[in-house]
Amino acid sequence: MTNFRSDNESPAAPEIIDALIEANSDSAHAYGADRFTVALDNQFSELFETECRVFPLATGTAANSLGLAQVTPPHGSVLCHTQAHIHVDECGAPEFFSSGAKLIPIDGDHGRIDLSAFEQTLAMYGFKGDHEPKISTLSITQATECGSVYHLAQLQQLCGLARQRGMVVHMDGARLANAVASLNCSPADMTWRAGVDVLSFGATKNGTIGAEALIFFDPAMAEGFGKRRMKGGHLLSKMRYCSAQLAAIIKDDLWLNLARSANAGASRIAEALAAHPAASVVHPVDINEVFAVMDQALADKLLAAGFEFHRWPFENDMYRFVVPWNIEDQALRNFEATVTE
Amino acid sequence: MTNFRSDNESPAAPEIIDALIEANSDSAHAYGADRFTVALDNQFSELFETECRVFPLATGTAANSLGLAQVTPPHGSVLCHTQAHIHVDECGAPEFFSSGAKLIPIDGDHGRIDLSAFEQTLAMYGFKGDHEPKISTLSITQATECGSVYHLAQLQQLCGLARQRGMVVHMDGARLANAVASLNCSPADMTWRAGVDVLSFGATKNGTIGAEALIFFDPAMAEGFGKRRMKGGHLLSKMRYCSAQLAAIIKDDLWLNLARSANAGASRIAEALAAHPAASVVHPVDINEVFAVMDQALADKLLAAGFEFHRWPFENDMYRFVVPWNIEDQALRNFEATVTE
Amino acid sequence: MTNFRSDNESPAAPEIIDALIEANSDSAHAYGADRFTVALDNQFSELFETECRVFPLATGTAANSLGLAQVTPPHGSVLCHTQAHIHVDECGAPEFFSSGAKLIPIDGDHGRIDLSAFEQTLAMYGFKGDHEPKISTLSITQATECGSVYHLAQLQQLCGLARQRGMVVHMDGARLANAVASLNCSPADMTWRAGVDVLSFGATKNGTIGAEALIFFDPAMAEGFGKRRMKGGHLLSKMRYCSAQLAAIIKDDLWLNLARSANAGASRIAEALAAHPAASVVHPVDINEVFAVMDQALADKLLAAGFEFHRWPFENDMYRFVVPWNIEDQALRNFEATVTE
Amino acid sequence: MTNFRSDNESPAAPEIIDALIEANSDSAHAYGADRFTVALDNQFSELFETECRVFPLATGTAANSLGLAQVTPPHGSVLCHTQAHIHVDECGAPEFFSSGAKLIPIDGDHGRIDLSAFEQTLAMYGFKGDHEPKISTLSITQATECGSVYHLAQLQQLCGLARQRGMVVHMDGARLANAVASLNCSPADMTWRAGVDVLSFGATKNGTIGAEALIFFDPAMAEGFGKRRMKGGHLLSKMRYCSAQLAAIIKDDLWLNLARSANAGASRIAEALAAHPAASVVHPVDINEVFAVMDQALADKLLAAGFEFHRWPFENDMYRFVVPWNIEDQALRNFEATVTE
Repeated sequence: MTNFRSDNESPAAPEIIDALIEANSDSAHAYGADRFTVALDNQFSELFETECRVFPLATGTAANSLGLAQVTPPHGSVLCHTQAHIHVDECGAPEFFSSGAKLIPIDGDHGRIDLSAFEQTLAMYGFKGDHEPKISTLSITQATECGSVYHLAQLQQLCGLARQRGMVVHMDGARLANAVASLNCSPADMTWRAGVDVLSFGATKNGTIGAEALIFFDPAMAEGFGKRRMKGGHLLSKMRYCSAQLAAIIKDDLWLNLARSANAGASRIAEALAAHPAASVVHPVDINEVFAVMDQALADKLLAAGFEFHRWPFENDMYRFVVPWNIEDQALRNFEATVTE
Repeated sequence: MTNFRSDNESPAAPEIIDALIEANSDSAHAYGADRFTVALDNQFSELFETECRVFPLATGTAANSLGLAQVTPPHGSVLCHTQAHIHVDECGAPEFFSSGAKLIPIDGDHGRIDLSAFEQTLAMYGFKGDHEPKISTLSITQATECGSVYHLAQLQQLCGLARQRGMVVHMDGARLANAVASLNCSPADMTWRAGVDVLSFGATKNGTIGAEALIFFDPAMAEGFGKRRMKGGHLLSKMRYCSAQLAAIIKDDLWLNLARSANAGASRIAEALAAHPAASVVHPVDINEVFAVMDQALADKLLAAGFEFHRWPFENDMYRFVVPWNIEDQALRNFEATVTE
Repeated sequence: MTNFRSDNESPAAPEIIDALIEANSDSAHAYGADRFTVALDNQFSELFETECRVFPLATGTAANSLGLAQVTPPHGSVLCHTQAHIHVDECGAPEFFSSGAKLIPIDGDHGRIDLSAFEQTLAMYGFKGDHEPKISTLSITQATECGSVYHLAQLQQLCGLARQRGMVVHMDGARLANAVASLNCSPADMTWRAGVDVLSFGATKNGTIGAEALIFFDPAMAEGFGKRRMKGGHLLSKMRYCSAQLAAIIKDDLWLNLARSANAGASRIAEALAAHPAASVVHPVDINEVFAVMDQALADKLLAAGFEFHRWPFENDMYRFVVPWNIEDQALRNFEATVTE
Repeated sequence: MTNFRSDNESPAAPEIIDALIEANSDSAHAYGADRFTVALDNQFSELFETECRVFPLATGTAANSLGLAQVTPPHGSVLCHTQAHIHVDECGAPEFFSSGAKLIPIDGDHGRIDLSAFEQTLAMYGFKGDHEPKISTLSITQATECGSVYHLAQLQQLCGLARQRGMVVHMDGARLANAVASLNCSPADMTWRAGVDVLSFGATKNGTIGAEALIFFDPAMAEGFGKRRMKGGHLLSKMRYCSAQLAAIIKDDLWLNLARSANAGASRIAEALAAHPAASVVHPVDINEVFAVMDQALADKLLAAGFEFHRWPFENDMYRFVVPWNIEDQALRNFEATVTE
């Protein structure tokens, strides 16, 4: 069986297991006073070429929701893509943590917020006084839910417009590594230099057993966040085990190497499918996800050959393949052979 | 150095690391559809001799807060000990998750809610109509924050009175294993048979890298809890790693063996201190915690000998020693020798 | 000047002022223990021909939000029309009071939720496990935001489908009187007999100085609501003044007489505009609101003649006229003359 | 019958009814754009001799809770007297509106926060990192729940200490008029000049049908408050009726005259009781409330003579008399005669 269902289903990389074992060698101060956690601010500041404040967290939803709540008042709003995870896959967690901020969806092809749709949405606000929420925050998902990425100029435009309106910019980077690897840019260029203030840095899908971080590029914005995290039940007592994973994943480009491997696998899957007369690829394959329409016969053949993948709901004959970091060449060869045979 | 600061600072037991490595051997379904998580309901139902619903969680505060919110309406209240963790150490997480339920503290010696104080508190409610919160929930900490345990008869009395008033009973079992080991009773007797409805089952302090669970003894009470957990950002995508730890800790009495080791260590520390003229033990040492008053000279000598422990705030010359599961005989001998030399 | 801006801008009817003065004649018990409030349950139960529980409130948003929160868990959702007041005009109050429930908009012409769109929305849920909110509540606005009403059969269909799915049905009746007057049906037929569980009964727009009520047609659903109201800061200490208005408005069909007057005025405005070549009426004029497109010249002529009304945002050349309960025949004649001259 | 149960049970003064009737003379813009509301900022700024932002509200709990939420983050805390209305009489509304901020009670005689108890409470915080809430806000009730007032020097000390710690100061002025009348000071001296930032200005108990206001002495602190009020369902559509009452009550010292009348009545009641051998007055009678212990015979005699008053719960033989603004000399004479006969 080869699992293309979700990168959430992949195991952890050996380097991560090693890091856990190392972190387990002795006792260590709790609640983030351990040496692994203490070092993170510097390590990520170096990675992002600017002073960061880093808060390890157990889930991406926690990072998104706590981060959004930190920068959005209850009477505010978060603008995001219609298909953003925060809008359609988190059971209203951002609304809960922000005590009722409104999520305002904006359309756009391939999971990317369309700049003119964003402008139109902004133009709709400002006429209803206290009846409408404050336009507070823009949340951008990079890479997107469709497996595409925003290019740097697109990010700069969106963030620039948001900042003109006094908005704060959040980036949901559940697959940040895949996006950085895809764009082959510096993490700084894709985040704060483009205008991002707060980043959900995801590592769970990318080879850890579970490690996320919320990163503030403006330390002043993190004021009080530690208590907010505690209040959300998200202060890990043995934080070192989360922090050690974060340290290990960004060490020696591991995060990018794992992401590159996954991305490359998706390219091969996309090529194989695109070449088949009964299949077509729906979105740009910028990272490790392929969305494809195919006929039942082809889908059945792939399933019969032991490939697991999701039929996408509410879309005719659409399927999603997500390639994990640990994909092997042989599995991809088998996939290619099965498609073309 | 020997760390008696907190069991939160202990490493994980080898069996736990083995379980993580085993869980890492392949891909697995996400969000709790993996074989480790799926098996937990049965495993805990067997352990507790009744049908349970088990929800793995990353922190004890999450277990407490989500559990309390599940059974307490916003306009309700949670009665708990004055020193309960939920009241004084969770930065208001129960209030946040319940959307503002009121925590009502009740006194009692040695961290135990006093039955007559509980009765008096109950007698104060019912006179103010809608101005006062509903008396909804009783939260009992077992073992207590003072290192004591409630005996079974005490639990039965408190729970019985609560249920007479239509209240739901929650147990904060951050150190449940130590309490079960101390009472040498069945887990069932100390929980649902005594009248507990919802249990925060702690394993983080007791030899895991981080694994807690919320357990409902009445499956009907768990209605909708999965979505509530997600909304709190507490649905772990790679849940297997948490579940595998929970499975490993309750297998072959590991949880009780680790707790017994820690409890026994605390007894030796307490005996050593009690025998010293400049020290006295403040609370019953039922589990792995010792609260002792001692003079500065003795405290300094212990520190100089490499023992780490907390000076307790707001209490004159009071100190806390928490013995971890992995305490070694040699360390205890050293402690005894240092005290008595 | 004749004010067609909003019925929120109308004064109170003489009967209401008389009721306030009567209520002011002596001291009275606070927090709803006065004779006016105590009588409301019976008075509304008679009006609606079923046992009701009635909670006076100061605002319609309070009635909507508290009512929705009472029947929707934090991890639930409220389905409503895309243009529903609760979705676009209450600054996220329903999300706040429900602690983050998700509002899910459904389209439909003329402000009415389309039955097949409702079915399609329901068909989208149930595939995402805990990642999606529970489908909890349907909120219907009667009369709609567009000045139309649902006919009884439409209400029955929507409510029937909602109840099949285990949903609770809320009705936002900010202009309930106008809807009842328009349909010329019994209040019971338009509410609980059609399947409505909880009703926001509006009287502020219809001739009071400010009086709303939340009505539960199933008293069991009101369990704990009094405390919830208090917790929201919505328990009026001198409740009699609100209750006296509610009693006065439903006495001797006052509410319907005022609404009929307003509705009739809107019909005349609509007829006048529809007959003009440069104007067209956009929505059915079932109640006291007229939405019309007209050219600038006609709009300017009306403004110059002293008529006040809103240009509707985001719609080309669309205007809204809301006729208050106290409209005078002379003002309508003037309007007709101005349009046709 | 003479009602000494609560000033919440008194009717409205004739000037207030006149103001309502005047406000009802025509249509007026909704949601605070009417001439009555627009004028309030200036009128209160003049009254308080500093620039104010004034937000009319329907209840005191709304003023307190929304005001506290505006200045207290969810992970913050509000320090208040053990018997403060916000702590024991609002069903957790401050916790709800602040999304879970912690209320921390401080003792003190006669309803006044004791300065050294305040200092001791402050000294307890700062040792638990993110486990404890931020010390954010001090809430002072003036006049207190016991019918006493803080003298100016006491207010200055408490506020000064709070501000040293970076806290914001809120004043619950449900009976502010009675306190100002009692101290015979300027409203400015008793509020912002003493160090108060946000004031709940109560007028409901003091002769209106229901009118409260939240006042910010630092307009910058009011940023976003309008939307917060709307989100709480507390934006009155026909706000003029509330605002007209507020304007009328502060015009020509009406608020102080009404309060003086009530205060004077309480003095006479206190004197009568103090002179009786079977009664004793418990708290300083600074305003319109008298707390007295008396024997059953005296209590029964007063009840038999038609005086209504509350037996205070949980205190042996303690009773509360609250004198309304409209107390008549004859009623007081009767009371005196009954006591002394």
